Amino acid sequence: MPELVTLESIQQAATEIQGIAVRTPLLPSPWPDLWLKPETLQPVGAFKIRGAVTAMSRLTPEVRAQGILAHSSGNHAQAVAYAAKVFGIDAHIVVPDNAPVRKIEATRALGATVELVPLTERFSRPAELAASTGKAMIAPFDDANVIAGQGTIGLEIAEDLPDVDVVLVPVSGGGLISGIAAAITALLPNAKVIGVEPELAGDAAASFRSGSRQEWSPHDTARTIADGLRTFAVGHLPWEHIRTQVHDIITVTEDEIAEATQRLLLDARMLAEPSGAVATAAFLFHRSELPPGKTVAIVSGGNIDPAVLKSLVAQI
Amino acid sequence: MPELVTLESIQQAATEIQGIAVRTPLLPSPWPDLWLKPETLQPVGAFKIRGAVTAMSRLTPEVRAQGILAHSSGNHAQAVAYAAKVFGIDAHIVVPDNAPVRKIEATRALGATVELVPLTERFSRPAELAASTGKAMIAPFDDANVIAGQGTIGLEIAEDLPDVDVVLVPVSGGGLISGIAAAITALLPNAKVIGVEPELAGDAAASFRSGSRQEWSPHDTARTIADGLRTFAVGHLPWEHIRTQVHDIITVTEDEIAEATQRLLLDARMLAEPSGAVATAAFLFHRSELPPGKTVAIVSGGNIDPAVLKSLVAQI
Repeated sequence: MPELVTLESIQQAATEIQGIAVRTPLLPSPWPDLWLKPETLQPVGAFKIRGAVTAMSRLTPEVRAQGILAHSSGNHAQAVAYAAKVFGIDAHIVVPDNAPVRKIEATRALGATVELVPLTERFSRPAELAASTGKAMIAPFDDANVIAGQGTIGLEIAEDLPDVDVVLVPVSGGGLISGIAAAITALLPNAKVIGVEPELAGDAAASFRSGSRQEWSPHDTARTIADGLRTFAVGHLPWEHIRTQVHDIITVTEDEIAEATQRLLLDARMLAEPSGAVATAAFLFHRSELPPGKTVAIVSGGNIDPAVLKSLVAQI
Repeated sequence: MPELVTLESIQQAATEIQGIAVRTPLLPSPWPDLWLKPETLQPVGAFKIRGAVTAMSRLTPEVRAQGILAHSSGNHAQAVAYAAKVFGIDAHIVVPDNAPVRKIEATRALGATVELVPLTERFSRPAELAASTGKAMIAPFDDANVIAGQGTIGLEIAEDLPDVDVVLVPVSGGGLISGIAAAITALLPNAKVIGVEPELAGDAAASFRSGSRQEWSPHDTARTIADGLRTFAVGHLPWEHIRTQVHDIITVTEDEIAEATQRLLLDARMLAEPSGAVATAAFLFHRSELPPGKTVAIVSGGNIDPAVLKSLVAQI
């Protein structure tokens, strides 16, 4: 079994990201007993900046100076590009050629080199580049340093609401929930960390119920509106955290995700992407499945597709 | 000349609002040299909570226990209702009977008694109530304690970005800019505080240019989409701050306000009401009129009318 991420590593990450990632506040919400953690406020609009900066700051200066590699079609690409810019190094990002143009352009605007490849080469091409160039790869979630960076969210929650009972976390590759679970387990052992997934991309929930890590077909997970949560399986290191430190994983429907996104916007004045709204959806529509008490929902990102935003706002 | 609000009073306010108002972060924006101060994250969605809590906490316990009065049709009403709920006292809010139903309902939902009166009685009725009941009135802006509360925003900016050059602040009654100017003048005398108003409600800009406080007709100021900035004149105490501590007041057009609201939403992932977007509009469209350097725009509130939101998003 791989070693779980330690509190010490997360505490070190907190100093590494200082001045680059935003120390987000914990906000009382319009709904009694619910607080929101708005990672939408991060540069590039998602929590991913925490892990990317942590991983990058732990490279040796010599390795880092050669520039870094990453593969992603979403928020991780922009986070890596932003962090590389802060460190003054080159970023080479391999992106599947079916990724949204808007996200590709946003990544390029941050100064990264974007290489488009067929979907089938999205993992092999970066590995090939790493071997031929000696550049370091910044993994999206299956990495102890990335998990430590995401875990700084858990430290901040423990500081701002030490009597929290439940922390609701969106789950995709599992880096975010692993870091938060590692921090909360160490600092607030009575609090429960619970994952939330779209029903249509419920591989982590199925894994949790069965007790063994499952992979779903990307064709299936692609059905959800929550485009940041379409990963077909949690990572191997995240799975060890989920298996041992997470209390439960529950799923929400597409309608619930859409309504939670609308209510966050109108009632909490917060622009979330659908992936960022799943934890709030769990609180609003599945409270009976959750332990009672003071609850935090992580609003993990705000990079909503403009067409999706238009459609959701038109229905308000 | 009335006494200006002191740094000491603002520093005391910072301790009085702690745990009730949110200590908002200062966010790097998608636009170089601009940082955003998101007061949209406050409970009730606007900076007004800072002043309301400060004023309420400075009443004697005996006076406060009798409950408080306020008059407002907007964010101040909700801020007073929220603060009264926190203090466990009654709030009686006098609201003109042409106020938006949504705002009246939001104020009632916070537990306040809302009394609707004809527009012509919006000032006389609260005065009458104050005299007959002995309850204290929480003024919206023309009050040293309210100004001290809003000034805590200036303290936070000085702490987060001590080399700031320019602070852009929406102006309506002038309480917000007065508090910020008092704090910034004391802590960062080289930084310039600049007010921003809609051209169609430009009474403060006209006052600033002419050197004497002017009143516009409410009929004229009602023309702007920025419904939080329709006050027909700045308060008397705010005017003394504006006259002596503010570097300039500039105006923005209705189109600029609308576009800034759209860009805050899509590019900065922040829901602002049009009134909250005027400072950002000044940076985006009037940079040549501003001193150069590191600039902060206050995003003062996020209580956008759903119909306005729909219309702005449909045009994206």
